[in-house]
Amino acid sequence: MDKAVVLLSGGLDSATVLYLAKKEGFKCFCLIFDYGQRHHKEIKSAAAIARAAKCEREVVKISLPWKGSALLDDKIKIPGLTGSSAHRLTGVIPLTYVPGRNIIFLSFALSYAEAIKARAIFIGAHAHDYSGYPDCRPEFYRAFNQAACRGTKAGAEKRKIGIRTPLINKTKAEIVRLGARLGVPFALTWSCYRGEKQPCGECDSCYYRAKGFKEAGIKDPLIKDER
Amino acid sequence: MDKAVVLLSGGLDSATVLYLAKKEGFKCFCLIFDYGQRHHKEIKSAAAIARAAKCEREVVKISLPWKGSALLDDKIKIPGLTGSSAHRLTGVIPLTYVPGRNIIFLSFALSYAEAIKARAIFIGAHAHDYSGYPDCRPEFYRAFNQAACRGTKAGAEKRKIGIRTPLINKTKAEIVRLGARLGVPFALTWSCYRGEKQPCGECDSCYYRAKGFKEAGIKDPLIKDER
Repeated sequence: MDKAVVLLSGGLDSATVLYLAKKEGFKCFCLIFDYGQRHHKEIKSAAAIARAAKCEREVVKISLPWKGSALLDDKIKIPGLTGSSAHRLTGVIPLTYVPGRNIIFLSFALSYAEAIKARAIFIGAHAHDYSGYPDCRPEFYRAFNQAACRGTKAGAEKRKIGIRTPLINKTKAEIVRLGARLGVPFALTWSCYRGEKQPCGECDSCYYRAKGFKEAGIKDPLIKDER
Repeated sequence: MDKAVVLLSGGLDSATVLYLAKKEGFKCFCLIFDYGQRHHKEIKSAAAIARAAKCEREVVKISLPWKGSALLDDKIKIPGLTGSSAHRLTGVIPLTYVPGRNIIFLSFALSYAEAIKARAIFIGAHAHDYSGYPDCRPEFYRAFNQAACRGTKAGAEKRKIGIRTPLINKTKAEIVRLGARLGVPFALTWSCYRGEKQPCGECDSCYYRAKGFKEAGIKDPLIKDER
């Protein structure tokens, strides 16, 4: 049984990727990051999803002393719908972008994959909705795949560790439908950038999640009643 | 004055790179990792070198729970001259290889560089002596450079962050000569894999350092008396 490292954030994209990798027959090892997010709700969600999927997990704590993103820095206000809609119209990189985040996550995943002799790394990035993030673009993943081949013992010894981005060209609605088919426990996932009891319904992440569920014609179990 | 992030390990290679970047006119920001090395002597050395060079520094603590390298794992004995000479003859990747280490370091450097708007990242890797490490090969750095371009806000906005490996084709003797010319405080550097009071003189790193100083015809200030 081939092993895979799955980057798990607690959101519905990475949860769907985990269930997809399992379906493909991989023995999955979940990698969860505690990187100074403003709330720990997503880390708890990620752990709960890994448990539900009966997979091993590792939590890696990293600190980015330089911050520079609304998701890490208490002094920057997380943009609400008004602020965030600007980037959807203009293509400007959103304030919630964390410098180099996905490349850091992938690097750790690569180290983990080498250590356990995994054949693949799965990440739930997609280019459609979040086109503002440069590290969600397919050309970035292709380039990183090359670097991974050339900079690892596995690559040097011709045991390739493939970087897999199965959601890269999917819309949020397609991801919701796929997740539903795979039996992803949506109720355990968390998408909201704010860590309150209920999703705020205002941040970018809530906006895209709600849009995805609506377009898929599926009810989001996190939304208790219509607002 | 353009800014640069310099990866500083405490050894003589990265110290030489720091002084080279300063000579080129960069305002340098040193990035030091505390990644569970078996001894902290190299972290102290790195901090002392940054102070001597009058540069700002950040220490990032990272944990690799999966280990898998003699440099991180107390259970693996660090190979002495007999063991390590094998890889110099056979080209086998040494036990002291840390899975994905340089790619992790570079990813953090990229995040730091984005946050402070630096134009370059300097790393003291070289392909000559340590040909056993896959993440010291020029083709790895070229591939990572591409990934860095495509996966960052800086790259997306056409402000390129260049990955600079000025030592990549130099021998240790050439590095020692260059360092001497640039006034690198060799006495503050530390190369030995073991963290004892004096360099052990037996590990790979001591072997290459001694060879480099000898071939350069320069005395290593860390070696108090002839043995």
